[in-house]
Parts: sequence; C-alpha cells; structure tokens
Amino acid sequence: MTAWLERLNDGRNVWYGTEKVEHLASHHAFKGTVATIEKLLTLSNEALYIEGRHASFHIPKNIEQLQKKQHAYEIWVDETFGMMSRLSEYSREIETGWYANRRQIATYIPHFEEKIIRRYNDSKEHELLSTAAAQDLQRKRSQSAVEVASGQLRIVKKTEEGVIVRGAKTIATAAPYVDEYIISSFHPRSAEQKSLANIFLIPANLAGLQIISRASFASDDKVNQPLSARFDEMDAVLLFEDVLIPWEYVLVHEDPEAAWKLQQDPVAGALSQHQTVVRLVRKLTAVAALANRLASEADITSFLHVQNELATLFSQIEVIKALLQTAQQTGQLINGVYLPNKQYLATARNLGTTYYPKAIEIIQKLSASGLLQAPATLELFDVHPEWHSYFEGASLNGYDRTLLNKVAWDLVGSQLGARHELYERFYSGDPVRTYANYYKQHTKKEAWQQFATSIL
Amino acid sequence: MTAWLERLNDGRNVWYGTEKVEHLASHHAFKGTVATIEKLLTLSNEALYIEGRHASFHIPKNIEQLQKKQHAYEIWVDETFGMMSRLSEYSREIETGWYANRRQIATYIPHFEEKIIRRYNDSKEHELLSTAAAQDLQRKRSQSAVEVASGQLRIVKKTEEGVIVRGAKTIATAAPYVDEYIISSFHPRSAEQKSLANIFLIPANLAGLQIISRASFASDDKVNQPLSARFDEMDAVLLFEDVLIPWEYVLVHEDPEAAWKLQQDPVAGALSQHQTVVRLVRKLTAVAALANRLASEADITSFLHVQNELATLFSQIEVIKALLQTAQQTGQLINGVYLPNKQYLATARNLGTTYYPKAIEIIQKLSASGLLQAPATLELFDVHPEWHSYFEGASLNGYDRTLLNKVAWDLVGSQLGARHELYERFYSGDPVRTYANYYKQHTKKEAWQQFATSIL
Amino acid sequence: MTAWLERLNDGRNVWYGTEKVEHLASHHAFKGTVATIEKLLTLSNEALYIEGRHASFHIPKNIEQLQKKQHAYEIWVDETFGMMSRLSEYSREIETGWYANRRQIATYIPHFEEKIIRRYNDSKEHELLSTAAAQDLQRKRSQSAVEVASGQLRIVKKTEEGVIVRGAKTIATAAPYVDEYIISSFHPRSAEQKSLANIFLIPANLAGLQIISRASFASDDKVNQPLSARFDEMDAVLLFEDVLIPWEYVLVHEDPEAAWKLQQDPVAGALSQHQTVVRLVRKLTAVAALANRLASEADITSFLHVQNELATLFSQIEVIKALLQTAQQTGQLINGVYLPNKQYLATARNLGTTYYPKAIEIIQKLSASGLLQAPATLELFDVHPEWHSYFEGASLNGYDRTLLNKVAWDLVGSQLGARHELYERFYSGDPVRTYANYYKQHTKKEAWQQFATSIL
Amino acid sequence: MTAWLERLNDGRNVWYGTEKVEHLASHHAFKGTVATIEKLLTLSNEALYIEGRHASFHIPKNIEQLQKKQHAYEIWVDETFGMMSRLSEYSREIETGWYANRRQIATYIPHFEEKIIRRYNDSKEHELLSTAAAQDLQRKRSQSAVEVASGQLRIVKKTEEGVIVRGAKTIATAAPYVDEYIISSFHPRSAEQKSLANIFLIPANLAGLQIISRASFASDDKVNQPLSARFDEMDAVLLFEDVLIPWEYVLVHEDPEAAWKLQQDPVAGALSQHQTVVRLVRKLTAVAALANRLASEADITSFLHVQNELATLFSQIEVIKALLQTAQQTGQLINGVYLPNKQYLATARNLGTTYYPKAIEIIQKLSASGLLQAPATLELFDVHPEWHSYFEGASLNGYDRTLLNKVAWDLVGSQLGARHELYERFYSGDPVRTYANYYKQHTKKEAWQQFATSIL
Repeated sequence: MTAWLERLNDGRNVWYGTEKVEHLASHHAFKGTVATIEKLLTLSNEALYIEGRHASFHIPKNIEQLQKKQHAYEIWVDETFGMMSRLSEYSREIETGWYANRRQIATYIPHFEEKIIRRYNDSKEHELLSTAAAQDLQRKRSQSAVEVASGQLRIVKKTEEGVIVRGAKTIATAAPYVDEYIISSFHPRSAEQKSLANIFLIPANLAGLQIISRASFASDDKVNQPLSARFDEMDAVLLFEDVLIPWEYVLVHEDPEAAWKLQQDPVAGALSQHQTVVRLVRKLTAVAALANRLASEADITSFLHVQNELATLFSQIEVIKALLQTAQQTGQLINGVYLPNKQYLATARNLGTTYYPKAIEIIQKLSASGLLQAPATLELFDVHPEWHSYFEGASLNGYDRTLLNKVAWDLVGSQLGARHELYERFYSGDPVRTYANYYKQHTKKEAWQQFATSIL
Repeated sequence: MTAWLERLNDGRNVWYGTEKVEHLASHHAFKGTVATIEKLLTLSNEALYIEGRHASFHIPKNIEQLQKKQHAYEIWVDETFGMMSRLSEYSREIETGWYANRRQIATYIPHFEEKIIRRYNDSKEHELLSTAAAQDLQRKRSQSAVEVASGQLRIVKKTEEGVIVRGAKTIATAAPYVDEYIISSFHPRSAEQKSLANIFLIPANLAGLQIISRASFASDDKVNQPLSARFDEMDAVLLFEDVLIPWEYVLVHEDPEAAWKLQQDPVAGALSQHQTVVRLVRKLTAVAALANRLASEADITSFLHVQNELATLFSQIEVIKALLQTAQQTGQLINGVYLPNKQYLATARNLGTTYYPKAIEIIQKLSASGLLQAPATLELFDVHPEWHSYFEGASLNGYDRTLLNKVAWDLVGSQLGARHELYERFYSGDPVRTYANYYKQHTKKEAWQQFATSIL
Repeated sequence: MTAWLERLNDGRNVWYGTEKVEHLASHHAFKGTVATIEKLLTLSNEALYIEGRHASFHIPKNIEQLQKKQHAYEIWVDETFGMMSRLSEYSREIETGWYANRRQIATYIPHFEEKIIRRYNDSKEHELLSTAAAQDLQRKRSQSAVEVASGQLRIVKKTEEGVIVRGAKTIATAAPYVDEYIISSFHPRSAEQKSLANIFLIPANLAGLQIISRASFASDDKVNQPLSARFDEMDAVLLFEDVLIPWEYVLVHEDPEAAWKLQQDPVAGALSQHQTVVRLVRKLTAVAALANRLASEADITSFLHVQNELATLFSQIEVIKALLQTAQQTGQLINGVYLPNKQYLATARNLGTTYYPKAIEIIQKLSASGLLQAPATLELFDVHPEWHSYFEGASLNGYDRTLLNKVAWDLVGSQLGARHELYERFYSGDPVRTYANYYKQHTKKEAWQQFATSIL
Repeated sequence: MTAWLERLNDGRNVWYGTEKVEHLASHHAFKGTVATIEKLLTLSNEALYIEGRHASFHIPKNIEQLQKKQHAYEIWVDETFGMMSRLSEYSREIETGWYANRRQIATYIPHFEEKIIRRYNDSKEHELLSTAAAQDLQRKRSQSAVEVASGQLRIVKKTEEGVIVRGAKTIATAAPYVDEYIISSFHPRSAEQKSLANIFLIPANLAGLQIISRASFASDDKVNQPLSARFDEMDAVLLFEDVLIPWEYVLVHEDPEAAWKLQQDPVAGALSQHQTVVRLVRKLTAVAALANRLASEADITSFLHVQNELATLFSQIEVIKALLQTAQQTGQLINGVYLPNKQYLATARNLGTTYYPKAIEIIQKLSASGLLQAPATLELFDVHPEWHSYFEGASLNGYDRTLLNKVAWDLVGSQLGARHELYERFYSGDPVRTYANYYKQHTKKEAWQQFATSIL
C-alpha cells in the first residue's frame, strides 16, 4: 500500500451526489480508478525516475533530459491507453517550472521564492499528486466580467492567518484522487476584478473546501467495459464558502498583473505543455492501433476508402510526433532550463482539438453497426460455446473479437469516451479562443515584405 | 394493461448475457423502455389513427392522407424526443406497402397474395409491433460472397412444413419488444447464393429462434438520466440454429431475383422511407431546441460564432422539411397508392447521415466543459440548497440548469447517445454505398446536352 | 438592333483603366457580353413575358404566377450556363416589389408613391436593365462606422434640385451595361450616420457619375474560351464626386430608419431573393451536368469515390430545388401579392455560398490533371488530324473531348470562373454575417418547452 | 546571356496551338517565364552552389549537407513567390539519386552504371534543366490496363540504334524550357504490358519528339498581373510518333520489374521528395504573408473569425516545417548517402494536397469582394490622382493597396492561380491513391498488441 493510498483518507470533503464519500478506495464510483493509480505508483520501471524522483519534478538542462521526461510520461500513458489525461505530470510541471524560474518570478511577486521552495520540495519529496483548476463556472458568460458576485472565486476578507475566499472553481479533473490543487484563472483580470486575481496552491483537505463530483462514468465490469472500469479520472467543482487559505498557500493575491504573469510563466508553460503533447502522441497511437485492428478483423482493409480513413489516422500521429520532436530540437536554454519551443507545442495542441474527435469519428465509420452486434456479456460464450463462431473475425475467435468490439465501444460509445472527446476539444480552452491567441502570438510580422520585393 | 404487454410473455427467447430473460417488464435492462412503449400505446390521441387503426397500416390515396400519416408519426417522435427510431412504423409500412402492391408482386412471386393478406390483416387487427433485420454479421466482408458457410442466414433443408434455416441476422433493433420480424437482405444475391436469397415474416416467438441482446444502455435513474431511463430501444442479433420456418411465413425462398425485387418494392420503399424522413425532421428539431436553450442559459447567443453554429442547426431542419414537403408534393399515384417522390426522400436520408452527427458536435462545442460541471445527482440540492446559486443559468435556477445539462449529456455523452449517432450514420446502410447508389439511380442522363447547345 | 443597344451610348462615363470607353459594343473588354445580352433581348420565347412585359416586372397574385416568373428566369440562366448572375431580374424585382408595396411604404416615406410609380412604369415600359450597389469600399472595416469621411457615399449638400453626394459604392455588377442603379446600404445606419442613410434610383448616365471597371475577364476567343468570351458581366465601382441627384431619383434621404426599412422591405426582398434561388438551381444543374460528362468521358464513373462526389452534386440540386418549391408552396398573399416564404429562400441562399465552391472543387478533383493536358488551341487538330486520337474520350473524339475540357477549365480555371466562386460566396453578404442574421431572424422561440414536457 | 538561353534554340519542336514556336524568348506565351529563369540562373548567391555546381546535383553525406540543399532550394522559391514548382531541382534530384545509388541499381539493370554516369555528369557539368513526365493521357481510365493500343507510350520496335516508340506522356511541366526529360510511369506494369515498361532520359530536341503546349496563362502586363507575367511554367504533352530513342538514353526497356524498382528507387525518391517539401513550406509562407497583409490592410485582424482563419494558415506552415525538420533529423545514411525519412516527407506531401487549396480559400474568404473592386489598371491613378484615396487601406495608399489586391487576385483568381491549386492537389498523383499507398506502406504492424496487454 502506497503512502498515496493512505493520504486519500486525509479528511478531504468529497461529495458524490448527496453522499459525503468516506472511503474512496471502496466506493463504486472511485474504486476502479484508485486501483489503477495504485498500480501505476507501484510500477517498478526505472525510466519513470530521474535522481530518485518522478521525472515530472526534474528540471531539464538539455534536450536529452527533456527526452528522458518524455519517455517517463509515455509509460503511464501506455499503461492507461491514454485514458488518464491528468495523471499529475501536467500540474507537477507547473510547480517544477515555477520553482525553476523562481528568481525571475520573485522580481514581481514578494515572498514567492520561499513559498515555492517549500511547496515544490514537499511535493517532490512525497511525490504528491496534483491538479489545476482555472475555469469559472459557466454562466452569464457574456456578462461584464466585473460582476464578481456571480459565484466566481474571490477574496472576501484578509486576516493575519490568510485570506478568506468564497466562490467556485472548475474543471478540477481528478480532484478527489490528488493531494493538492493549483487554483488560478484562464483569463486576465482588470483592476476592478482585483478580488478575483489570485493564485493558490492548496492541499485537498483544506478545511471547509467542498469537492463536488460529477456523475461517475466508472463501471464495475472489468471484462465487458475494460476502459470505464479502470480509467474514470473524474471531474469536480471546488466550492469555497468562506474558506480560510493560509498565507503559505497564497502565491498571488489581489494582483491582476502578477496573477496573469505567473499564469503565463514561460518556464511552467513550456514544461507543462510539453507533457500534454507527449500524451497526445501516444493516445492517438493507441486509437489508431485499435482502428487498424478493428478494420483488419472486419476484413475491410483492402477497400480504397478504408485505406484513406486509416491513412488519416497514421498521418495525424506523424504530424504530432514531428511537432513534438521539432519543439524539442528547436528548444532554448533559458536561465539554465532547457525549454521546448512553445510555438510548435501550441500548434500540436491546437491540432489535437480536432484530431482526436476525427479519430473517434473514423472508428465509428469503420466499425459501423459492428459495434452494436456484440452480445451483452462475454460470459455468454461460456454458456453457449456453439455460438462462438457467429461472432468471429478475420483472425480472432468470437470471444476475442467481441472483446475487441467492446474495447472500441468503450472508447467511442461510453460516457468515459464522450468525456474524452470533450476533454480533447476543450482542455486547453475554447478552440475558437486558443486559435485566435495562436495568431496573435505568432511571430509573423514583416513576413510580407520579404516576398513583395521579389515580385513587385 | 395492453394486449402488447401480455404478448411480451409469448415464449420468445430473449438472452441478456448468460441470462434467459423471463419477464421483460421487470428486467432492469428492459423495464424503462417497456413502460415507455406501454405509455405510447395507451395515448388517447385521435390523430394517431385512421379508420380505427394506427396510421402506419393505412394505404394513402392522396397527398392529404400521406400528410395524415406524417402527423401521426410526429406524435410518437415528439413523445420520445426522437430517441425511439424504430417504433414499428417503419416495418409496418413495409408490410402495408407489400399488401397495397400485392397484385403486382404476385406476378413474380407465387402464393404471395394469400400470404401477405393474412399477415397484413393479422398485424393490422392486433396492431402488432414489428422490426426488420436485413444485415449479416460483420465478418470477412471482403470475402467472396458465395462462402455461405460463414454464418449467414440460409436454407439448409426444405420439408413439407416449411424451410429449415441456419445462421444469423442483425441489426434487429427493438427485437425483444416487438411481435414480428421481417427478415431479408440489404444486398442482391447471385445464383450461387441461392440459399441466402429469402424473405421471411416471422413471429418473435418462433420455436428455436434466439434473440441475443447487446449490452443495455438503460439507466434506472429517471431524474439524472432522463433519456437513458426511457428510450433504449435495444438492438439484437437473431440466431437461427436449424429453425423451422413454416411456409406461411416464407414470402420468398431460394430466389435471388424475386428476393431482390421484393426488397426493392417501390411501394413499400416509398412508404417506409417517408416515415424515416418525418422522424428525422422532428429529431433534428428537438436537438436544435435543446442546443438553443443550452446556449441561452450559458448566455452566449450574442457571439457571432455561436450564432453561426445555431444557424447551421436551424438550416438543417429547413432543408429536411423542404425535402419532405417536396417529396409529398411531387408524389405520384401508382396502382391507387399515393407515393412520395423517392428521390427527395433519398436526398434527405443521405443528408441525415451527416446532419445528425454535426448537430451533436455543435452541442458539444457550445456546451464545452459545462456538461462536466454538473453535480453527480440533482438530489444534492435538497441537502445543500445553499449551493443552488452556483449552478444557475441565465434564466434557470441551479436545479433546472443542472437538469438541462443532464439532458444534454444524456444526448451527447451517454451510450444511448453514442448509439444514436451510429444509428443515424448507418441505419440505411454504409453512406459510402448509399451515396453511390443515389448517383447510380439518379435521373440525370443527357443533362449535359441541354447546356452544351447554349454555349458551344 | 434593340433600343437597349442604343441606350449604351447615352453618355455614361465608363472607365476601363485610363481609358474612357466611348463605344462598349466594340471595346475588347465589353463586346462579347454586349453581344450576349443583345441575343437574350431578342430571344423570341413567349415564356419570358407576362402581359407583354418581361416577367420580372409582373406582380404575382398566386403560386402559378410565381412559377411563371420562375420559368421565365430559367430561360436566361440556361442560355448563359448560369454565368450571368445579374441579368437585371434581381434588381427589377426590387423595383417591382417596392411598386407593389407602395401604399405600405408610403406610410413611412413621404412622396414615395408618386416617385416609384413613375420609375417602375418607366422601367417596365422600356424594359430597362438595372443593377443594385449596396456595399461600401472595403477599408478600415473595424473602424467606428461614424467616421463618414472615409469615402462612403454621403449627402454633402441639399438644394432645390436635389442632393449633392460624394463618395463611392460597389460592387455594381454589370454597371456598364445597364440603364439604372439602385443605390442603398447593406447595413443599418445610426443617427450620427444620417448623411449615409439614403436610397437612390438613378440612371446610368447621371451627370458626373464615374463607373470604374475592374480588369476585364473577357476573352476574344469564342472557340477556346467559350465562357469567358461570352459572359463577363463586369463589376464596377461607382464614384460620385459632388454629383447632383435630382429629387425624383431620391427615394430616401438622411433617414436611417426609413432607409433600413425600405432596404428590408418584405415584398421586394421576397421577390428578388426568389430570383436568386431560381438562378442557383439552374447554375448548379449546369455544373453537375458538366461534371458528370467529364467523368463519363474520363471513364471513371464506376469508381466508388467518384460516384460519391457526383452524388454530392446531384444531392445539392435536389436540396435547393426542394427549398425553392417549398418556399413557393408555403408562400403567403400579402396586400394582394403572393410572396414566397423567405425562410426557405434564406436557407437556400446560405447553402449556395458553400454548395457552389464545393461543386467547383469536385470538378477539380474529378478532372485532375486532365484539364491541363488540352492543347493550346483546338485548331491544332486541323493542322495535325493524326494527333486527334491521342486526346479522345470514352465517347467523344479528340476535338470534342478537348472542347469539353476547355469549357471545364473556363469554369474552374479562368478569371471568370474564379470571380463566380467569389460571387456565390459573397453576393448576399459575408456568410459569417448572413448566417448569424439567419439565426437571429429564425422563428425558433419556445421550441424547447415542447420537448421538455415529454421527457422531464 | 546564359548557355541555357542559347540551348532553347536547339531544334526542339514546341507547338503552341497551330504554331511551331521558333523563338521562345520572344514569343508572347513564353517570354516572361524565359526572363524569370534567366534571372534565376544568373543570380550570384553562393548558397545556391556546393562545390561549384548547383546544390541539386550534390550527394549529401550528412544532415548539414541536406540542410544546405534545403537552403539552396529556398532561394529560387522565394525569388518566384513559390510559383515555379518545377525549377528542375526535383528532376535533377532523381538523376542525382540514381547516380548516387548506381551500384545498387546496377544489380538489377544491365548497363545502368555507365549510362547514368554519363548522363549525370553531363547534366551536372552544364547544369542542365530537366523535368519528369510519368503520366499517361487521361482516357478510359477504368479500362483494362493491357489495352496498350490506346495511345500510351510504348516500344513498337527495337533496332541496333535504339528503340522506336509511339504514344504520349504528360504532364511534362516546363517542358518547352528545359533540356532533358525523364520519361517513366507512375504505375507498375504487368507482364502483358511489357512494351509500356520503360524508363528513358532524353534530350528535349530528340528528333521527332513533339512538345504540345497547353494554352498559356502568361500575361504581358507586369504591373497589373505581376505573377502571371513572370511565372507560367507551362505544361505540355510529349508526343512520340515512331521516334527513335538511342540506347544511351534508354535506362530500362520492356522490363516491368526493373522499371518499377527504378521508379521507386529509395535514394532518388527521398532526395526529390525532400525538395518538394522545402518548396511547400516556402510557398505556404508566402501565401500566409500575403493573407496577413490583406487582412491588415482591410483592417479586419481584430475579428475573432478572421484570427481563426489566419491561425490556420500559420499552423499549416508550422506543421510542414516540423515534418521537414523531423524528416531530416531522423534521416539515415544509406550506402554513403544521408537520406531524409520518407515517412515524414510523405505525410507532408499528402497534407500539402489539402493545405494549399485551404490557404487559397482563406484568402478568398478574407478578401471577399475586395478583390473585385480594384480598377482595371493601376495607371488609372496617374490620370485621376484624386481618386487615389477611395482605394486606400489601413496603411497603404490607393495605388499600393490596389497593387496588393492585384497580386492576391493573380494568386486566387487567375488561370495561373487555378493551375497552382490543381498542381498542389495532384502533382504527386491522385490523393485518393497516394493516401491509400501511405497506409499500405506505413510501418504500423503489431501496434495494437502493445496497448491490448495493458488493458485486457
């Protein structure tokens, strides 16, 4: 039993509907995923660690170290079929980045250095799991942003012990399972919104904090729903009703400029986005492999239009792999940290918002009604082995073919699957906005002059 | 209690995994849908009936009668949010069409008239529910079609009582719930495939017939999964292992030409496809209404890109409505039956294969992460009424907004929802093939000459 | 020689580059199109006329009369391969609509009735050709709209004779060829923009008005560029530098509300949009016929992916036809005028902005490099008849096949063709805006409630 | 005057319609492009050369040398706005590749080594320009490929001097301008098609060879059509009517296996495809720069949907750049030649077939009607300087803004532009086939097993 499993009972307030969950490891909505995480944490694969700690805490000094981190991340992704999007590496990298860049940050945030040193060392030593929540609840989005009374997380009072806050933050993916939360905002705040302009790094069991789970997408049936039974990482709303956050967890308070600058920190940004692209490559690879096997078993790979669909899947992988590799190759050493090139990472992340849904659509198109002809349970074949042959594929027998179809259905047809499509579309913000930002930040100035001179 | 509810216990062999289901009305996988159908069958809406029987049994003599049938169909669609795709009207229309066109059909199928008169009258008198299964299990699709040993449904012997058959048919949507099955083939058969070239119209409780259900997508929770708790119409594989089909149920046997001609019968085709387009209009309307309400509650309808997405949804509806209306207006009286124009119906059906998935995608894009921030159960608000306000929308309170989000999630995120996307893409065959057939059957010949003369 | 041909020399100021064009009928940039229009105007087809005047001046009293107008419009479209988008019917219908609705309009515009009666009767009696220009020159679009100094057409002074205006209007399609111009604005104007809020109906030879042609897309070679040699309808900028518009041509002046109301007049709108949809159906039909013939000659119609592309083309036509027919069927009699349903017309127009470019893309994809292998001129085969056979198609000899390819290239590869793609995308405004307006004007309110009650 | 310019008069038979072109440098259809090539050949940029010869003849030994070749290619692309797709580097690289791999090739083609050494050295020493033609005329494509009588280039007789051939080859891009042609086939040939299975490397002035030009897309007007006046690289059909090809130019004859193997040679393939991807990056960059400038001058870059369109353009560039860089980084040293990774190059080439058309569409969408409001000629402003201000942009005066619009129109609206869209879609074959081949050649085997073990 890991220290993490013990920490799950640290008093955090996890709500599942009307139920306050007392023991996650045995609760139907959580136990499958708890088992999956416990398995990952006890994996004895040396490649996961650098200098004795998980690679996500390592500060890369050169491209080789960056690639080492990549290989460490790939292990967990491959162990989970890419279905655990937020296994802490992302948010750990934010902490690692802030720590690595602490001198620079300290120039605009007082007391930052001492706080982040303590937090980072604590997280690293205990290999804490974490997550980040930067979104406000979706409501009256077109409203003037200064109407802070609408439930957004804000400071209502400051005391000697810390700040008293009220309001909510979301999407706190994996919140019930992890040890600490990075609380910030996706958008810059104006002077009038000062009370919203904060960044906190808090423990899950902070007194008074309520963790409101969405409906579980977990299944009890490992045989017939292999993905849903293992990989529902859960999403949650974090509710603060006059909760005290001690000063040691308050990185920024009531400072729009500092909050936005820290949110945009180049070191934390490059390292954490690097992880998301590593994850994307392997997830797309898993999906393409499944699609290719489905098509092979349905014996349709000789059709021109099927070859075109499968080519699209493999092409997607090559593109994201190339962007990742080029981001690494064209990285830069900044204040002693070797950072991947953010422009290529941003390109990959933007493409991911359409590539993954496209991949799922291709599986739908290739599998067609085949996904709906699988018997309710695989155990049927124990009772009626003579029906076996009706369900066989080009190379698999009826049982294994049905199992393959059930994996595919769990990916494209389950709540877990639908949530992943939504996740890939939106985890880095609304694509309409992220594409716009991509344009605004792109270094394309003066580009026209170069060509104009040659033809005019 | 309806006669239908009693007929559910007529001895049919319904399998749910390893379990032989003895009582559908109380089985967790079926009871919600049984209740829904029972409710529909006891609706006291006169518009459902023509001359005392359900409109689907009526032979239309003019456009007004065709429109009456349309209005009858709309009632059940609207009562079920468009989620019950196969409420028998489709297959009943096939029977009605064959009956209406029996003289013509009798010229190429011996004994057809006496058999269809008995079947149609029986179905009409008892208002039987029915479904159609015309697909083979998906396996070795690229194989030569003559390898009949591969599990396709075929005649293995003929006796005085009838034919002995062996093999499987799918996708028998709603099979556990309905009274009779139309068994045929989507594709023409060659002379070598004679044993596959059959059409049967059989009762659900035919001795020896096994009905293999897929995994249920039903939920027990009417509050939190309003669609899944009511509308899982189920799909099944029909397994025949040396089953005797008495001659009275055998419409065509071992006759590739007759089987294909009956499968393509213009009267049955036009009437049954008419129903599917009526259904499509109302389903798209329901989805668009939901999308519009979601956007209104999220207060995003003033954004240009949101307006564009919503415009797409409303535009889809207008297109399918116009195609339906034009199919009716340009219909023809053939042997005393007023038939809608199949070319416009085919256009609508083809567009439906991409319109519905597009509509679902738009709901995903508009709702974004909002769908994942809903608490696990609505009952939470009973325990914590003070959390209500965090989840409110532009006009709805937290409870009702959360309920709205749960309906949306049930549509785009549940297994039921995913199955509907698959259904709309594929229910009339693989779009790659149906589009190709559309081209081949289109009356576009000589079109070029008309234009060439004006410019050359 | 028609009266129209004489009117071309009425003193209008047409500029082609630095050249003031004195005689359009013999100028290389205009003569081909002049010949085409002259041919259309001398066509002796009774279906073009109702009560002795061109159908575009007729006020429809019922659906049959609306269909008569449709059939009249189809004649010119078919005579020109759909390449003359603005053969006056559109703008004539605006005049006809205003005339038909003059009583209603007179309630908010003083002197309107007497002016429109004179204008309409004059246009009708002499069968004047006309066009409409409602766009401002494209510049500093994001600027505050009140900066009227930026070249937009505005009133600078009012005198007893009329108004003095300064500024420009565009896209005046066909301006050099036609007799009168309707000058208005696509967008509503604010109170501050009063000076921009005008509607004029002016003769082409108004003193001081300059007509600035774009580069001609016409060709001199009728054999090798059959479309470009006949159908360049030209676009122009209309420049007014302190031009006097007499009061009789001033329908609205300095009245934002009245200008916008007249611009949006439901009768003029429905009749003129009706014409554009009639045109669209026939243009798409011509393009599909060409595509089908190209594919037949290249002997590729048996390929599945080619059948899918061609099916898309025929499907497009059925959709727009159905929308047109339904708009007519669901029309309404308003103040004695039978008007088509604008919602269906708007749907068709919006779809046209993507359907036409898609059709052109399909021709590109089907023809592939075939379009580039045609010899420079068809006359080559006179010199080298022995090379004939190298260029033959499935049914055509080398000469005719090459001619077919040249028509296709003129459609997808010439400046004329590119301008048509642009025209279809933008003639009714930027699709991003027209789709948004479509949503805003759609009668979808309360739709959700109907469905909610059935499931909640 | 370069040696190349003299070589244009070497007796080659160039047909332009019925005219045998005697002097390309002064012929209206060719002179602009002749001037462009002459300018490129006299550029004094050292980066174009390695060891005294153009970089395209260099055999790369390591990644740095590959990058040197890249930089050399970029120069000509940038000098021509990406509009000269086939400036010989592509076909030169085929020759260079065959030469570099000659030992290997000699194992299956007798006499190959001596022939290629002579050809390569000659080409390199005189820096000959070349092109490749591998397609058959498009006709009866679905016909059995063995019907060799249909005009495909075939050997009809063998003599001591060489082979006598009859038939045609296309698309010989730039054929009138270059010195030698590589003649081969895109598709493998069967044993029955032996007479078609040849590879020749012939001089342009081979006795009896006829070069049939397509219609010229060139303009005489450098000011108003800046691209068309400079960059029409021309396409041609090569006709052989009983032409003798001496043995020294015959690399393969009547050998399906050898012809296909040489066509697929990995060294020639990797080097030539490398050039096409270099070209693609710079061409997309030029187009994006133009689009960005157009949007800036129209003052629309602050609109969200415009930012999204522009983001797509810049994203395309990053993707192709990353694929190019990764192809170089993951290259391999094979028989002493450092070759880029073909899988990444193939990915880039496939994406190019849709990226370029998408880029052109975006320019259309952003420019809208603005492209059609440009006056016929820029010289107008000399006559009417007072009209200048009507046409100005956000930063450019009327003249320069109009010039910018004319460049844009020349790119998206001219025949030259349309031909480029077609070229990018099809230059490496029909995308439906190339995507299918991509799938078939992709190294994805056993991929599924890796993931299955982790979840099943």
